[in-house]
Amino acid sequence: MARVNEHYLKLKAGYLFPEIGRRVRAFSEANPSAKVIRLGIGDVTRPLPPAVLEAFHNAVSELGDEGTFRGYGPEQGYDFLINTLIEKAYAPLGVRLKTSEIFISDGSKCDTANILDVFGSDNKVAIGDPVYPVYNDTNVMVGRSGPADERGHYRGIVYLPCTEANGFFPPFPEERVDIVYLCSPNNPTGAVATRQQLKGWVDYALANEAVIFFDAAYEAFITEPALPRSIFEIEGADRCAVEFRSFSKTAGFTGVRCGLAVVPEGLTARTSSGEEVPLNKLWNRRQTTKFNGVSYPVQKAAAAVYTEEGWRQTRENIDYYMENAKLIREGLKSAGLTVYGGVNAPYIWLKTPGGISSWDFFDKLLTECLVVGTPGSGFGPAGEGFFRLSSFGSRDNVAEAVDRIRKKLR
Amino acid sequence: MARVNEHYLKLKAGYLFPEIGRRVRAFSEANPSAKVIRLGIGDVTRPLPPAVLEAFHNAVSELGDEGTFRGYGPEQGYDFLINTLIEKAYAPLGVRLKTSEIFISDGSKCDTANILDVFGSDNKVAIGDPVYPVYNDTNVMVGRSGPADERGHYRGIVYLPCTEANGFFPPFPEERVDIVYLCSPNNPTGAVATRQQLKGWVDYALANEAVIFFDAAYEAFITEPALPRSIFEIEGADRCAVEFRSFSKTAGFTGVRCGLAVVPEGLTARTSSGEEVPLNKLWNRRQTTKFNGVSYPVQKAAAAVYTEEGWRQTRENIDYYMENAKLIREGLKSAGLTVYGGVNAPYIWLKTPGGISSWDFFDKLLTECLVVGTPGSGFGPAGEGFFRLSSFGSRDNVAEAVDRIRKKLR
Repeated sequence: MARVNEHYLKLKAGYLFPEIGRRVRAFSEANPSAKVIRLGIGDVTRPLPPAVLEAFHNAVSELGDEGTFRGYGPEQGYDFLINTLIEKAYAPLGVRLKTSEIFISDGSKCDTANILDVFGSDNKVAIGDPVYPVYNDTNVMVGRSGPADERGHYRGIVYLPCTEANGFFPPFPEERVDIVYLCSPNNPTGAVATRQQLKGWVDYALANEAVIFFDAAYEAFITEPALPRSIFEIEGADRCAVEFRSFSKTAGFTGVRCGLAVVPEGLTARTSSGEEVPLNKLWNRRQTTKFNGVSYPVQKAAAAVYTEEGWRQTRENIDYYMENAKLIREGLKSAGLTVYGGVNAPYIWLKTPGGISSWDFFDKLLTECLVVGTPGSGFGPAGEGFFRLSSFGSRDNVAEAVDRIRKKLR
Repeated sequence: MARVNEHYLKLKAGYLFPEIGRRVRAFSEANPSAKVIRLGIGDVTRPLPPAVLEAFHNAVSELGDEGTFRGYGPEQGYDFLINTLIEKAYAPLGVRLKTSEIFISDGSKCDTANILDVFGSDNKVAIGDPVYPVYNDTNVMVGRSGPADERGHYRGIVYLPCTEANGFFPPFPEERVDIVYLCSPNNPTGAVATRQQLKGWVDYALANEAVIFFDAAYEAFITEPALPRSIFEIEGADRCAVEFRSFSKTAGFTGVRCGLAVVPEGLTARTSSGEEVPLNKLWNRRQTTKFNGVSYPVQKAAAAVYTEEGWRQTRENIDYYMENAKLIREGLKSAGLTVYGGVNAPYIWLKTPGGISSWDFFDKLLTECLVVGTPGSGFGPAGEGFFRLSSFGSRDNVAEAVDRIRKKLR
């Protein structure tokens, strides 16, 4: 008699985005002429840069010719892309990586989920609150938690509240943990870790033989040069951290699918008998056994992001979104709201006015301004009283949304 | 102190293809003028069909235009591809599927590995011997086995020997199992299950509440119309089977990456307390949480395989490979070898002459004929004394390889 993985049954139904959809539909049906502007979902809208597009087309054409056709590629990704990342994305930060330390994937969601495969089920895991739900749910799915409480916290997982008081940066836990997720620039709060903050966690990890999962999917949106873009800018991180990056938000690849994980060769974890095992080897075994590499034309398109022309065009799109972020941020401030994020991240994290709940603010914004955002409580109980707006919309929509909020929000 | 998943440490090093590479390199270095022909690896060589290429290009172009740009797609795949598969791949077989029952993925290797996520660790699993190594290794990695014995069999996994005597079709196990992998057309043996054989396993699964993982990655190579191409052609399979298919071999997508899993809504497994849980819901939760969908242009290219023109061109490539298979099969027979497969599958499974070992035959074929194949023992101990040749090479190479074998093999 086949048995299911019962840990899945502990998961609460995905509630956030379906509920948003339900409320927006109900409102739109009751108000058919209302022009609703959506700043809820974190999905890009700008087309692929021309240089990226050209490389993509060229690689597709190669597959149509017997002389240039390629079948299976390396599961770890092609060297042309890995070496581009080493030279263009990491070397300028002073981070030196080997080809064997970068693994190309179809996105950070997959990587941050799959990395758990190579860790034992007896690790104690810490995640932020509010948080990107994948970190939480994937740990529940592999049996690293008990059931959820009424707030949505699962027994056994250590939640690190990210609040106004701590600048939305996860504090050290009271009990020792073995794995901690850090996301900087942060989804949903838009907060970015300083060098000092990251050093604190690297020191913690080295002292406790913990591993940091560093999600840098939004690093391209950092505008202040002093802020770290990679955890490997911090000394010692190559002995305690895995880093995840993505082309999704950086280069408009949410529908194209390409990301990477950096697993340093010096990073180890232990067996129950205390033996040190290199995680790079285990991750390589995982990827070669359970994954078959990223589509060749996609890897060619990704590599073109880092050509001179490609990077200039990519930056233009990022600047476009960050100008949106600035518009939202300043507009909301001038409307008297307390606003975080939006400077080094594409997300604006605002405090709901008058202490109303995240969902009440959602309804207020929808019905009074015809603007859709994401209730902060949907990312965890510590997000209650906050609200996320995304800067990935079109300039016209963003400007109109801000204008409505300034004029109508009471 | 972070702990590794120690089950990974039970895995034996991937030995087969590195060892083949080592021997071929050594021979080529000693014989630099030797023109070695490789019929070992199961990778396609024909370029993408023009209709597929055109759709691929068009979709890439869409991503370069603001009006047609697409970001995140459905994790389950786009309806345009799912509905194409329902109408063009399944309806002609008399198999009726719902949109919600097909999940587009980046390939069968990933799907056959990831499907284990939704099953408990207490299932008893049966696999064939010889076998596609992913079935074995992924079960070891999630802790469903003890250590390997000296033959490479892992304690706790039930191995079903596929031999000449049983027509290379897995026999029922002596002890009851909860999950069984069936691969038809088979890699590596080239054997294809009859309707009657599949019915036997469906009846077994229904009687024992077992689940069949049916890997149909090579179904497009079936030439005899009476043979089943989908397990869902067998009554009752929609209550006991998951099917995996792939565009890799069918349409030259080994480097493009697209596959699918069919998880019927009527398929269930149980909790420890006996409650029935639909696996479709669990797989949907798995995919939406740990996966972000397949690249949009890749899905458009895949859908074009099933246009009238696309299918005609795709068939031409398949016919090309199957003509290769026929050449190999008949050539080896005329050389006095005992040969299986190659009629409804792109693999030829030959019995080594005079009972020599698979690796000795490898050396003989390499040194006497300058032809590289794959030793059967690399797929499991029951593959000892057999040898796999692939029909995915170019016609000229295949013809010359056969010619050499006929003339030189003593």
